[in-house]
Amino acid sequence: MSLVIVGTVAFDAIETPFGKTDKIVGGAATFAGLAASYLYDNVKLVSVIGDDFGDDNLDILRSKGIDVEGVEIVAGGKSFFWSGKYHNDMNSRDTLITELNVLADFDPKVPASYQDCEYILLGNLTPQVQMDTLARLDNKPKLVVLDTMNFWMDVALEDLKAVLKKVDVLTINDAEARQLSGEYSLVKAAKVILEMGPQYLIIKKGEHGALLFGEGQIFSAPALPLADVFDPTGAGDTFAGGFIGYLAKVKTINFTNMKNAIIYGSALASFCVEKFGTEQLQSLTATDIQARIKQFIALSKFEISE
Amino acid sequence: MSLVIVGTVAFDAIETPFGKTDKIVGGAATFAGLAASYLYDNVKLVSVIGDDFGDDNLDILRSKGIDVEGVEIVAGGKSFFWSGKYHNDMNSRDTLITELNVLADFDPKVPASYQDCEYILLGNLTPQVQMDTLARLDNKPKLVVLDTMNFWMDVALEDLKAVLKKVDVLTINDAEARQLSGEYSLVKAAKVILEMGPQYLIIKKGEHGALLFGEGQIFSAPALPLADVFDPTGAGDTFAGGFIGYLAKVKTINFTNMKNAIIYGSALASFCVEKFGTEQLQSLTATDIQARIKQFIALSKFEISE
Repeated sequence: MSLVIVGTVAFDAIETPFGKTDKIVGGAATFAGLAASYLYDNVKLVSVIGDDFGDDNLDILRSKGIDVEGVEIVAGGKSFFWSGKYHNDMNSRDTLITELNVLADFDPKVPASYQDCEYILLGNLTPQVQMDTLARLDNKPKLVVLDTMNFWMDVALEDLKAVLKKVDVLTINDAEARQLSGEYSLVKAAKVILEMGPQYLIIKKGEHGALLFGEGQIFSAPALPLADVFDPTGAGDTFAGGFIGYLAKVKTINFTNMKNAIIYGSALASFCVEKFGTEQLQSLTATDIQARIKQFIALSKFEISE
Repeated sequence: MSLVIVGTVAFDAIETPFGKTDKIVGGAATFAGLAASYLYDNVKLVSVIGDDFGDDNLDILRSKGIDVEGVEIVAGGKSFFWSGKYHNDMNSRDTLITELNVLADFDPKVPASYQDCEYILLGNLTPQVQMDTLARLDNKPKLVVLDTMNFWMDVALEDLKAVLKKVDVLTINDAEARQLSGEYSLVKAAKVILEMGPQYLIIKKGEHGALLFGEGQIFSAPALPLADVFDPTGAGDTFAGGFIGYLAKVKTINFTNMKNAIIYGSALASFCVEKFGTEQLQSLTATDIQARIKQFIALSKFEISE
């Protein structure tokens, strides 16, 4: 049984108030895969890259035990490239360059060895690619998690609604939840969205944490206040990878385990933003992660006995 | 021993997407006093009103056991009046009318019977009035909580810094914490602000909850996601009143009790916003409050055992 992650494997060039990078390894599937690899040992990626990506960069993934058989390499093609500049508050950014390159014609390949897929994360891509990937699995996975963004609500809403009927968990941010539902109150927004298909909705609020809706319950997860946020790129993908990686590890899908999965996803995301790109995510230890989980427990625990 | 609350007792006229009110009873000390009265039975107000306020409106406070001896009534004067209109998102509002009236010359009177003050909430007023009130107490209270806002940072920063040296707990919102400290990271902002005098800092984040900094620790309290926010007026004051009311009740000032105090303050604030003005705060029961506290526990509790 395996966890399959579909998404971009790409190059980023990032500028923040703290510095700037040349082209470094990025992409949603990269961040999510690295995060998941700390929690589950059978992670497989579906993506597309050009032959500019380089085998040494794929080794970053392989070294964490991540299967890259499903990462198609287009001969003579160039990998997806995104360049952005963060403002001083690190919460807003300008996109400087988006080169789709090989991503423009991404037709996801699901190798035969991936048909043992039990958990799948459909990273932020066109809803049609998300749907195609699901269709290429012989069996319906036990858990389908879908990440998307406002752009697809603007340009491919009907496709998005179609794929939402097939997912168990949707992850979006608060503005996107409001856009998708037409409701300002997140409680009402969640009600509308859960009627679109998913059984669970995660609303990501960045520095304000995340909300989980499902089974008639709500869970509010804190974000760890950090002294230095160095580079927010990939935090949401890291969160999603940690989330599904934890659920793959514990196997039982219910609200209680989803809460813990959100804490693990948040903890991994908090590491991600402390360095540029995937740097911090490449070198964590189990001890690092457990120490951070303890910080989350201390951060949110209170005991009222009346 | 008593809890003294200094602040406005006033009239508000409020317009929201859900309706509008004529002049109704409002003011920071009104909201804070009502909230505190559910948790502590010796609450005393210091404020100033005109004789337009009406004894029946003071009865709203007296009926909760709140001592209004320190509420000066200026003969022929008019009470402070604020009118505002909330936008559709309920997070932003326009002030339509601000009539300071008797508040313009507020010289806080501390009756002799208030000299047993052990806990004091200095509501959002000019820092000079906050300082004067403290100076008129014969003994330093066990706990001084101060609420303020960006306006005083703009026009009376030195006075504000002077009074901050005399307080134990400061409550401000996240934008104000950034303004006061000059730091964007709330962790760094808290460090700077705690060096200005307070031992504890509460950063209020509205629908995103609150953060408590102090004793080298951080606590992140959730806000209860609500289907309908009817009128946010007074939520921050209600939070502060519930916070100090809980601490007055439990008597021991430490980080553990402060965490619970924030949950009580948040619970009372969640009631406040469900109706116009003080309506909901006038009619709560202990059962209502305990049920809401249980919702906060369910909202934020998770258990990770590894």
